[in-house]
Amino acid sequence: LASRLPQVGTTIFTVMSALASEHGAVNLGQGFPDFGCDPALLDAVDAAMRAGHNQYPPMTGVPALRQAVADKVEKLYGRRYDANTEVTVTAGATQAILTAILAVVHPGDEVIVLEPCYDSYVPNIELAGGRVVRVPLTPGSFRPDFDKIAAAITPRTRALLINSPHNPSGMCWTEAEMRALDALLAPTDVLLISDEVYEHMVFDGLPHQSAARYPGLAARAFIVSSFGKTYHVTGWKVGTVVAPAPLMAEFRKVHQFNVFTVNTPMQHALAAYMANPAPYLDLPAFYQRKRDLFREGLAATRFRLLPGEGTYFQCVDISALAVPERDLPEADFCRWLTQEIGVAAIPLSAFYGDGFDQKVVRFCFAKKDETLVEALKRLSRL
Amino acid sequence: LASRLPQVGTTIFTVMSALASEHGAVNLGQGFPDFGCDPALLDAVDAAMRAGHNQYPPMTGVPALRQAVADKVEKLYGRRYDANTEVTVTAGATQAILTAILAVVHPGDEVIVLEPCYDSYVPNIELAGGRVVRVPLTPGSFRPDFDKIAAAITPRTRALLINSPHNPSGMCWTEAEMRALDALLAPTDVLLISDEVYEHMVFDGLPHQSAARYPGLAARAFIVSSFGKTYHVTGWKVGTVVAPAPLMAEFRKVHQFNVFTVNTPMQHALAAYMANPAPYLDLPAFYQRKRDLFREGLAATRFRLLPGEGTYFQCVDISALAVPERDLPEADFCRWLTQEIGVAAIPLSAFYGDGFDQKVVRFCFAKKDETLVEALKRLSRL
Ligand SMILES: CSCCC(=O)C(=O)O
Ligand SMILES: CSCCC(=O)C(=O)O
Repeated sequence: LASRLPQVGTTIFTVMSALASEHGAVNLGQGFPDFGCDPALLDAVDAAMRAGHNQYPPMTGVPALRQAVADKVEKLYGRRYDANTEVTVTAGATQAILTAILAVVHPGDEVIVLEPCYDSYVPNIELAGGRVVRVPLTPGSFRPDFDKIAAAITPRTRALLINSPHNPSGMCWTEAEMRALDALLAPTDVLLISDEVYEHMVFDGLPHQSAARYPGLAARAFIVSSFGKTYHVTGWKVGTVVAPAPLMAEFRKVHQFNVFTVNTPMQHALAAYMANPAPYLDLPAFYQRKRDLFREGLAATRFRLLPGEGTYFQCVDISALAVPERDLPEADFCRWLTQEIGVAAIPLSAFYGDGFDQKVVRFCFAKKDETLVEALKRLSRL
Repeated sequence: LASRLPQVGTTIFTVMSALASEHGAVNLGQGFPDFGCDPALLDAVDAAMRAGHNQYPPMTGVPALRQAVADKVEKLYGRRYDANTEVTVTAGATQAILTAILAVVHPGDEVIVLEPCYDSYVPNIELAGGRVVRVPLTPGSFRPDFDKIAAAITPRTRALLINSPHNPSGMCWTEAEMRALDALLAPTDVLLISDEVYEHMVFDGLPHQSAARYPGLAARAFIVSSFGKTYHVTGWKVGTVVAPAPLMAEFRKVHQFNVFTVNTPMQHALAAYMANPAPYLDLPAFYQRKRDLFREGLAATRFRLLPGEGTYFQCVDISALAVPERDLPEADFCRWLTQEIGVAAIPLSAFYGDGFDQKVVRFCFAKKDETLVEALKRLSRL
């Protein structure tokens, strides 16, 4: 049987989570909270189920949830999306991104990704028959390099995938960068797929630079978000995509023949819960405190801290550690760290097609304070 | 923007459900129950959520649910699947079928579908870059025609999709037919995708002829099922696929980059609930009673009843109705029936690529008795 994805193994997140539980390590690898969500959200699911919301919802999503998303995007980013024709509820952000790619990428089309990038993007493009064009973010800062992006655009470029706040680096695009992208794409037909699942985790008082804020970008963009990340329920698998109606029409053609619809009681619960915006408005402060706690602890180790502008991830450079650890390939270092030190991390090489190794690993700080304190205690042994 | 699926509009199920609610019609179109599930199943979701099962489950599914599925398949169909390597939980059966197709169909490969067929199959094949080969089931009986299937197999045939119990016709493959298929495929490399989402709705005491019963078929098959249909929770979007490990390895490569995982609390709830097999063992009798009630009512109308061996669908021929209704194209008849008589149905032409019109429409009888009685009252006006 010839594989459609010969390069693909099991995702690094699954591999490292399994290794962490095998060795009783503190799992700062895969990105998910080790604390619960607001019990009011569970009550809302319960109420939805008992009210009988257990059959197929509308294919595009429960209307109240689509409206709540449209209202939020307008309030935060100033662009009005029509809840009926421009908002769709998805089975998580990963499904949204694959579906957008399958909807617009024709065999042979080029799609640009900025590396390091989330590990689903490249196989998603390959499944659509597209050609992956990899452009590096600037080493060290992980900032977009517009000369390199411009050089990668050809008449065959169908789409560009961006991700801000950026997994794995935590880098957040600035207003100037978004404007530069807008100017770069203006004379082209290149579509934008903007993965904004960490939209509510931008720190130091900065606003999230959603593509929805920039009319020139929004007009060509699928903008993807995730309730799992915002409400501490990564296992519920509910996300959203907003896009101008003509793009959304194509998206929905594929969506209806992929998952068709998304869990009904969870959609009703999220719609009811979104009537109170406090949870997502409080999120930057909530995670900034954890980031600061974790960074302060790391500052006392031999890890070199990289910037942490957003997301619930913190990257560190390992090249000042003792020999032999600092000379290990990142992936081997992460295994060693999990097994010997008892803390799981993700190697940045997993986010590069060629396994580029810059001696940087990623920790997830979406954890209880005591979990972070325990991890820091273990890491301080290094 | 060139469409990847130029032929595709909104699914007929969505269209007819919308029309039914607009006109206050009894909705016997889209297949879903109008009654609730066992409250114990809701309690189980509640318990799972309160126990903190709200983060990513394992990519392949919650182990207890995979084991429960493997045990059920072994008990009912006699084939042992390894819960770790041969069972995966999906976001519904539609996602399972698209994922299987994306995993094994290479651009240019031929995939055979037996028409009439569920409306996602053809776009699924097209998204994978495959070539759709349509073989009709025998008109009237909807039984497989092995001469026609044999004639459609070429060296480029990658897979055959079958569906038993069959949506829309209710036809169930017999043991002799499964053996004939086994013999036909034995000398080939053709893979089988067996959509068995109505496996627990086979009537008149007959056993479900799962592909899992036939070693030669099971060795080449992805077998897809649906908890939504079995437990009256179509909106939960949880399905499963079983397949030999080498096929499953390819499936999982795509699955992890499509939805990655499936709703955690629902998986835990279903695993706990499956400890009691009574619900699915009682299902044939439960639906057979509804089928009989509905068929008896229809027998008193001018609709001509077609066989109803399985599923929760009943097809009828409209050609003995009064003029002008009997001369309407099926789709127009269904719209007329919804608007004027107040009962929604699905035209069989929606299950054919060329819109083949044989004057047959499909009703769903997964409804409360009083709903069926009200629908029959309205239909008796014809
Ligand atoms: C989908 S599992 C991985 C979660 C995640 O987004 C990450 O760890 O980067
Ligand atoms: C996925 S919506 C349609 C439900 C169904 O399977 C049918 O009505 O045939």
